[in-house]
Formats: sequence, structure tokens, C-alpha cells
Amino acid sequence: MGNLSYAIVGTGALGGFYGAKLQKAGNEVHFLVNSDYQQVIKHGLTIESKDGDFRLPQVQVYNQVEKMPSCDVVVVSIKTTQNHILTQILPPLVKDDSIVLVLQNGLGIETEIAQIVSNVNIIGGLCFLCSNKIAPGHIHHLDYGKITLGEYATNYNAVGITERMKAIFQDFENAGIEIELTEDLLLGRWKKLMWNIPYNGLSVILDATTDEIMADMYTRTLVEQLMKEVQLGAKSTGRIIPDSFIQTMLDYTVKMKPYRTSMKIDFDENRPLEVEAIVGNPLRIAAEHDVSLPLIRCLYQQLKFLDNRNRGDR
Amino acid sequence: MGNLSYAIVGTGALGGFYGAKLQKAGNEVHFLVNSDYQQVIKHGLTIESKDGDFRLPQVQVYNQVEKMPSCDVVVVSIKTTQNHILTQILPPLVKDDSIVLVLQNGLGIETEIAQIVSNVNIIGGLCFLCSNKIAPGHIHHLDYGKITLGEYATNYNAVGITERMKAIFQDFENAGIEIELTEDLLLGRWKKLMWNIPYNGLSVILDATTDEIMADMYTRTLVEQLMKEVQLGAKSTGRIIPDSFIQTMLDYTVKMKPYRTSMKIDFDENRPLEVEAIVGNPLRIAAEHDVSLPLIRCLYQQLKFLDNRNRGDR
Repeated sequence: MGNLSYAIVGTGALGGFYGAKLQKAGNEVHFLVNSDYQQVIKHGLTIESKDGDFRLPQVQVYNQVEKMPSCDVVVVSIKTTQNHILTQILPPLVKDDSIVLVLQNGLGIETEIAQIVSNVNIIGGLCFLCSNKIAPGHIHHLDYGKITLGEYATNYNAVGITERMKAIFQDFENAGIEIELTEDLLLGRWKKLMWNIPYNGLSVILDATTDEIMADMYTRTLVEQLMKEVQLGAKSTGRIIPDSFIQTMLDYTVKMKPYRTSMKIDFDENRPLEVEAIVGNPLRIAAEHDVSLPLIRCLYQQLKFLDNRNRGDR
Repeated sequence: MGNLSYAIVGTGALGGFYGAKLQKAGNEVHFLVNSDYQQVIKHGLTIESKDGDFRLPQVQVYNQVEKMPSCDVVVVSIKTTQNHILTQILPPLVKDDSIVLVLQNGLGIETEIAQIVSNVNIIGGLCFLCSNKIAPGHIHHLDYGKITLGEYATNYNAVGITERMKAIFQDFENAGIEIELTEDLLLGRWKKLMWNIPYNGLSVILDATTDEIMADMYTRTLVEQLMKEVQLGAKSTGRIIPDSFIQTMLDYTVKMKPYRTSMKIDFDENRPLEVEAIVGNPLRIAAEHDVSLPLIRCLYQQLKFLDNRNRGDR
């Protein structure tokens, strides 16, 4: 049996998957659901997974946050493009000493959440997960799944491994979710951006998969130059990412199966892009430290144009 | 009657148009034609123009350069992507003191031509012409048409206004072609690149027309930043373009009719892009003067990727 109760804010490909795994392992889990509410209340959640399929015929599901109990852990697993709703959603869900677990991409989200709810602890989670929602309440987990957790403190000061992190670690490990803890959330976030900025960005701008980007000598070089700018951005906030990590990311991506990035999927489905969290915030945070990242800014400008036009086309 | 004889190397939308105007005005003109040879030998050239339509039922047309006479002026009006054929074509066409008139986009072409034929004078021409070849031997002139001429000397040293330039000026003016002379070819080429690099580049990368690029605040800013890098490139070769010229280009483009750039047209028709002449050469020339232009390099890398894939798709 798990120790903590969980509220899942955003029962999609990511939140639905992790939440279902936690409930299956015996945790108390409450799911906030938007458009799939009727389906999920009737039929529960179905997980098709490379690690084994399972169904949860009955889940505690809500379409109004006011009806949900406050929980030990509030998992934020909506897309960052929806984060404006958090000012409404988080206050009724948390209690003193709740943990808000931010399973989102990008930088600076924890700071925004700290401004919305000040009586909580915030933990950031970096998810390496490949999963899709293929129908209401029906999630297809294709590959990976590992989460890296780090606790947030003001100014992203590194706080080491806390008891709260260990408690979540315990629950997730019991639920069969691969998990690791990091002493420095900000370093972890920059490291993830080192992949996300070049590949998410270029995949949308060039209508390309990761293998196409790596097969061309010009874009491969551009990826590397973008990674060096992410390294500079990290350095501007006092985080050192070694050159060898860039090489590791490049080699890793060459070996990956051809991959359509999450931003490209959003783009192809005419959904808003997570440009601000993944590209805009790192740019702004580096700029606050007097470091400019011209190539990332160029990517940002191109993505904003494409995102605006893409949504205008709807 | 014109004074000079002309060989037109590349009887397309540009060379065909100017060559026909020159013949109509009484100049001796010899047209080198590739795929349209049979059509042009039978039916001549047809020009549909906003300045008045006309036909030349008979023109001196060739599909082999060896059969052409050497001429006073050899007009190079193929696309720069075909310039590898110039090593075969130019030597038999020129005589001592011929003028090679380079009506092409980009930078550095005159230097390449000087290496192929050393006994000639080279004049570069910047064409502001909007015209299309709509069928074999049939050209549609939509708008503009002005040519700016500057004479080339080693290292692009400015040589002022020469007698040769004046002779061409006379013929072109007689033919009803708007023409102006510049004392500094390199400055003229950089100024044209200030428009060509951002708009040609972004139109292909973002699948956009000029009005879309200018309507979005992000890409509008990116255009301006790219123009500033062109300004830096010009400065690296000792040419000063004032800031006011950037503003003029931006204002001019906002006022233009929505425009699909020539590089975008090439891309849409699966033709090779003039990336090297328009983007690669300026980058390399600035680099030779120890100036790096990171945004233009980013554009270059993206365009090379798209160009390679586009031609692979054929």
C-alpha cells in the first residue's frame, strides 16, 4: 500500500498513465478530467503498456476541482500552455505541507506555482516518457517512463534529497515506475532542455523527425550549436553541464528510433505549442543573468510565428 | 540602333526579357537556349509585359555555345545553381575586352568568373525584376525591371563609373530598361542582400509570404536582426550601410504587395535553391574578415537541410 494520496491535474497521456500505475499499486488517487469525464466515470481507465496492459474499471474522477479532496501530492500534468488555469485549480486542492509535483517540460514553472500557492512544497519531475492518449480514458504507453525528481526552493537553490522526495520515490517505485532523485532540480531541467530545445524546435520548423535532423550535416551542427547555447544558459544560472554531456545527447539521439517530438505532435494536431516553457523561459532566465542566446532566440521567433499561424488556421 | 552585341547565357524569365528588349531596340543579340530550343527557333520569343506586349518572331538562337559568335557583352542570366557550366560556356563566347555582365543574385560570383576568364571586364548587375517564364519562349513580365550596374575589380575594389558601364547604360536606356550606375558594386550587392537574405530565407523556412513575415512581431524582429547581421557583413568588407537603410527596407516591404520570393518559388517547384550565392558566400566572405554572423548561419543550415531534402524528394 502506498503512503500518500494523489490528485492528478490533467489525466492525459502522462498524468493518466502515472496516476493509473499509482492507483493499481494501492495508492489513493483522484483524477481531474476535462473532456473525457463521462467516459472515465463509466469505464475507468485503460492502459496499454509495453510493461503490461491493465484496466482500472473504477477510478475516483472529477470534472470540478471543488469536489475533490485536498491531497498529499498534487500532480500537475497538464500541458504548460494550460497553466493559466492553475490559479483556479491549485488553491482548493492543496493543504498545508502538500506537495505540488510538477511533471511538465521547460523552465520556471515551479516559480510560477510558488506564487499561486505559498503554503506548499514544490517538487519538479522530469519525465522521459513516450505515451499517447489514443481515446478518452485510453492511454497507450509506448516506451520509457523514467522520472527524475528534484525539490524546488526559492531561486532554484539546490536543496539536496529531502524526506518528501523519498516518500514519493517509495510510492513510485512500489508502483513500478522507474524513478531517480536529483539534488539540483535546476541542473536537471537545463539538462533536459539540452535535448528539448533543439529537437522540439527544429522538428516543428523543418517538419522533420530526429533521424532526419541528425542525418544532415548542417542541422546536426546546428543542433550542437543550440546545445552549446543551452550550456551557456545553464552556466548563467551557475549550473555547469560538461561538454561530454552534449556528445552523449547527440550519440543517444542518433541511436534512437526515428522520433516525432512532442512539440511536433502538438503542432500536427493544431494544439498550442509549449514554446514559452521550453524556449521562451530559458531565454528570459538567461537574459536576467545578462546572457543572450541568439540561436535559441531565432528558434523562438520562428516557433512563435508558426504557432500563431497554426492556431489561427483552426 | 544599339552599339554593342550581346550573348544571353540563360534565356529564362530574366535573360529572355532583357535580351528581347535589347533586340527590339536594334541591338545584335544571340540567345543561348537549353530546353526551349525547338520552340524558340520556330516561334521566337513572346514577351507579355506590363509595359506593353511584343513578339520577336525571329531571334538568333543556339543550343551549343560553340556555334555562337563572340560578343561585346556576355550576359550571365542562368541561376547561380547552374554556374558550374560557366567554365565550359564563357571561354568560347568572350574575346579580349569583352564584358561579362553578371545578372545574378548573391555575392562572390564575379570573383569566380574572373578565375574562368581573365581577359575580360566584369560588370555586376542587380536586377529588381518580377517576371516568370510561363511557357517555352514565353515570358511574363509582372513588375519592376530596374538594373543597377557596378564594375568589378579584384577584391571588389570600387572603381567608379567606367566607359564600359556607360556604353551598356546607353543600350539599356535605349531599350527602355530602367538602369542606374553605382561606383561600388560590392556595396550594391550587400544592400541587395539585406533584402534577399531575410526574406528569401524565411519565406522558404516558414513557408510564408513577405506580408505574413512582416505581420508577425516575432518574425518582423527576426528580419531586422538578420538585416543587422548583413550590415555587419558589409562592414567587415569596408562597406557602411546606414541604419536608416534597414528601416527603409522594412517600410518598403510592408508596403509591397504580398510577395512570394524567388527562392520560395524555386523551392515550391523543386528546383535547387540559390543558397550558396545568397547566404553561403556572404557568410564565408564575412568569416574571411573574422566576422561571424550566427543568425545568418542558422538560416543557412536550415536552408541547406530543406534544399537537400527537397531535391532528394524529386
